[in-house]
Amino acid sequence: MAVSNIRYGAGVTKEVGMDLQNMGAKNVCMMTDKNLSQLPPVQIVMDSLVKNGINFKVYDDVRVEPTDRSFMEAIEFAKKGAFDAYVAVGGGSTMDTCKAANLYASNPHSDFLDYVSAPIGKGKPVSVPLKPLIAVPTTSGTGSETTGVAIFDYEPLKVKIGIGSRAIKPTLGLIDPLHTLHMPDRVVANSGFDVLCHALESYTALPYHMRSPCPSNPIFRPAYQGSNPISDIWAVHALRIVAKYLKRAVRNPDDLEARSNMHLASALAGIGFGNAGVHLCHGMSYPISGLVKTYKAKDYSVDHPLVPHGLSVVLTSPAVFTFTAQMFPERHLETAEILGADTRTARIADAGLVLADTLRKLLFDLDVDDGLAAIGYSKVDIPALVKGTLPQERVTKLAPRPQSEEDLSALFEASMKLY
Amino acid sequence: MAVSNIRYGAGVTKEVGMDLQNMGAKNVCMMTDKNLSQLPPVQIVMDSLVKNGINFKVYDDVRVEPTDRSFMEAIEFAKKGAFDAYVAVGGGSTMDTCKAANLYASNPHSDFLDYVSAPIGKGKPVSVPLKPLIAVPTTSGTGSETTGVAIFDYEPLKVKIGIGSRAIKPTLGLIDPLHTLHMPDRVVANSGFDVLCHALESYTALPYHMRSPCPSNPIFRPAYQGSNPISDIWAVHALRIVAKYLKRAVRNPDDLEARSNMHLASALAGIGFGNAGVHLCHGMSYPISGLVKTYKAKDYSVDHPLVPHGLSVVLTSPAVFTFTAQMFPERHLETAEILGADTRTARIADAGLVLADTLRKLLFDLDVDDGLAAIGYSKVDIPALVKGTLPQERVTKLAPRPQSEEDLSALFEASMKLY
Repeated sequence: MAVSNIRYGAGVTKEVGMDLQNMGAKNVCMMTDKNLSQLPPVQIVMDSLVKNGINFKVYDDVRVEPTDRSFMEAIEFAKKGAFDAYVAVGGGSTMDTCKAANLYASNPHSDFLDYVSAPIGKGKPVSVPLKPLIAVPTTSGTGSETTGVAIFDYEPLKVKIGIGSRAIKPTLGLIDPLHTLHMPDRVVANSGFDVLCHALESYTALPYHMRSPCPSNPIFRPAYQGSNPISDIWAVHALRIVAKYLKRAVRNPDDLEARSNMHLASALAGIGFGNAGVHLCHGMSYPISGLVKTYKAKDYSVDHPLVPHGLSVVLTSPAVFTFTAQMFPERHLETAEILGADTRTARIADAGLVLADTLRKLLFDLDVDDGLAAIGYSKVDIPALVKGTLPQERVTKLAPRPQSEEDLSALFEASMKLY
Repeated sequence: MAVSNIRYGAGVTKEVGMDLQNMGAKNVCMMTDKNLSQLPPVQIVMDSLVKNGINFKVYDDVRVEPTDRSFMEAIEFAKKGAFDAYVAVGGGSTMDTCKAANLYASNPHSDFLDYVSAPIGKGKPVSVPLKPLIAVPTTSGTGSETTGVAIFDYEPLKVKIGIGSRAIKPTLGLIDPLHTLHMPDRVVANSGFDVLCHALESYTALPYHMRSPCPSNPIFRPAYQGSNPISDIWAVHALRIVAKYLKRAVRNPDDLEARSNMHLASALAGIGFGNAGVHLCHGMSYPISGLVKTYKAKDYSVDHPLVPHGLSVVLTSPAVFTFTAQMFPERHLETAEILGADTRTARIADAGLVLADTLRKLLFDLDVDDGLAAIGYSKVDIPALVKGTLPQERVTKLAPRPQSEEDLSALFEASMKLY
């Protein structure tokens, strides 16, 4: 179990310049995206760098939902800059891009696919030291500030895949709740659903001692190692925060207590799933995002169709947990109870249904689109969605119950309509 | 919040050679004590080093309850060896000695007091990189495998003090439950009391946002920063494990489930208090151990009088929490409930008394000596015990309630007899 350093508190972003100075950084790369580059979080970071006399270059070409091409552009920038430290200010896309830039700039002769997860990449272990990377999350969902994972769209195969290695985990995450006050309500909801699914999936993932084969050397341990007694703590705690604060955080932009807690929950769930892994909701989400047709998400200022990550993850959750519950029904029932279900008279055999109903109610209460049909998919898309899920074995193999193509097909079908 | 990497599981010690190889280590220092040097944990580590072709030297002169002198001997050994990595196999004394050896061998020109906590030392921040250190705990109490703290007896002043810096935190802790099967029952009990107090003290410590003054630069943050939302998670979880497993672990040497869980709880509580800090039970324990007269603890094979650390910590706990409860009574009542008290009809004003009674019952059930009187102290010793507590401000200032010399005196007096 490896855990990042995080510092949590209103205003901690202001300290980033001192932190970099303490790390001996003299030539820093700050990565962000075009939307954020004009907003307070980036401004605060730049002010702190200037105040502490640290030279830096800004890279603000991060793509929301990055691709291999956008990763490579960032990597080129990093290689040319010969930076001695990185700061990523943004959501998962920015942090993941920065992790990749740091990794490949530190290994300039490696091939891009060397560190990409198998079966598409070679999944090589990282054996060279990286530069320090400070992550400043501005959304409350990804948890990327605490994980050794970087996700991107691999365009040659039109699939979302990732790089997973403890080596790319940020050196420090600065969890500053003040950044959450800028988020519109759908961004809060969707990123909150990502936290919800990180917690639910990591808590119900295949236990670490049931994962096989056992690696011959600790360096070959996957970043995602299955549920374990430590990741369980984080998952359950994050889930309790989601249960208590998600609705408040979505509905009231000024509820600093609720938004602060969701920002912390994002990091906590990240520490949990960053060790345990996620499974089917995430594995199935990648084609749901990747095959988007015309859906444009409210509150996201991008010029292309987009199914936000958290939405693509949560829409299959009722079907997924109905399917997986037979393996660890107690855990499914326990999470339903944490999310507010009255489970006193529930039968253990109904654990999946109880959790699914609890999730449906939460999504309905938060005005979430009514299933995959509402975001543009129909039955004819199911084969393509299944095909896009198959290469996600990095995560799908961590599901507590193995799944056939027919199972996946049925899960997508059951997710077409929720209410 | 900074957290060490830990790996938990029966048999993980066998992997230490591969881990060191993966870190590029070629010349390793293994530290342990004379008792352990003939026992399986050390043998397993040496076999793994040999099998992986790693050169190493053994230092087995660690003193149980180390002193500045014993630290300096280990530091000399480390300096001469020019090691590129360390492995500490043992309890807190061994891990703490190894941390100090690594620190000062990496800073060969520093003065010993430079990094020792104020007011006795200079408490300088550590700004040079240390070598990797792998900690393999063989007792289930200290949590030292996860903390940036090293404690020793400073003989010139006859006080127990410490070095506290995130920089000396082990690179990796290998938490191997198989080592716990060698522990005699008093060692299990006393080390378990250390876990209990780590959890209780860190959960009731002054909250991080009430600590003052606020440091001007993050590098000046103390290792112990007060209770916070993340350390709280660790503390409560460790406490639940103690409540469920401590008695079983003490009473049955073959109860691998109970002993495994206590071994994990030790690390979890360590992560919690390693960030939040401890307060009065620990601050007052140092003179209780340091001024020992003739008491010889059962099950400890040392040739000098000894009050084991966990025992010296827990004997004042009923008095301490009765004293502190007025500040955060809900937390005191909550911990009493976790430890088994029926708090349904308890008044919040009685929180301290309820927790104290719960602790007394636990200690009585586990055949613990009846207070400070039973280990050789009487009223006439109280001024010396108070005097020995005063320099412990590194921890005592984290108590939720400030304490005068009269308060400390009353706390020692109330701890003379428990039942």
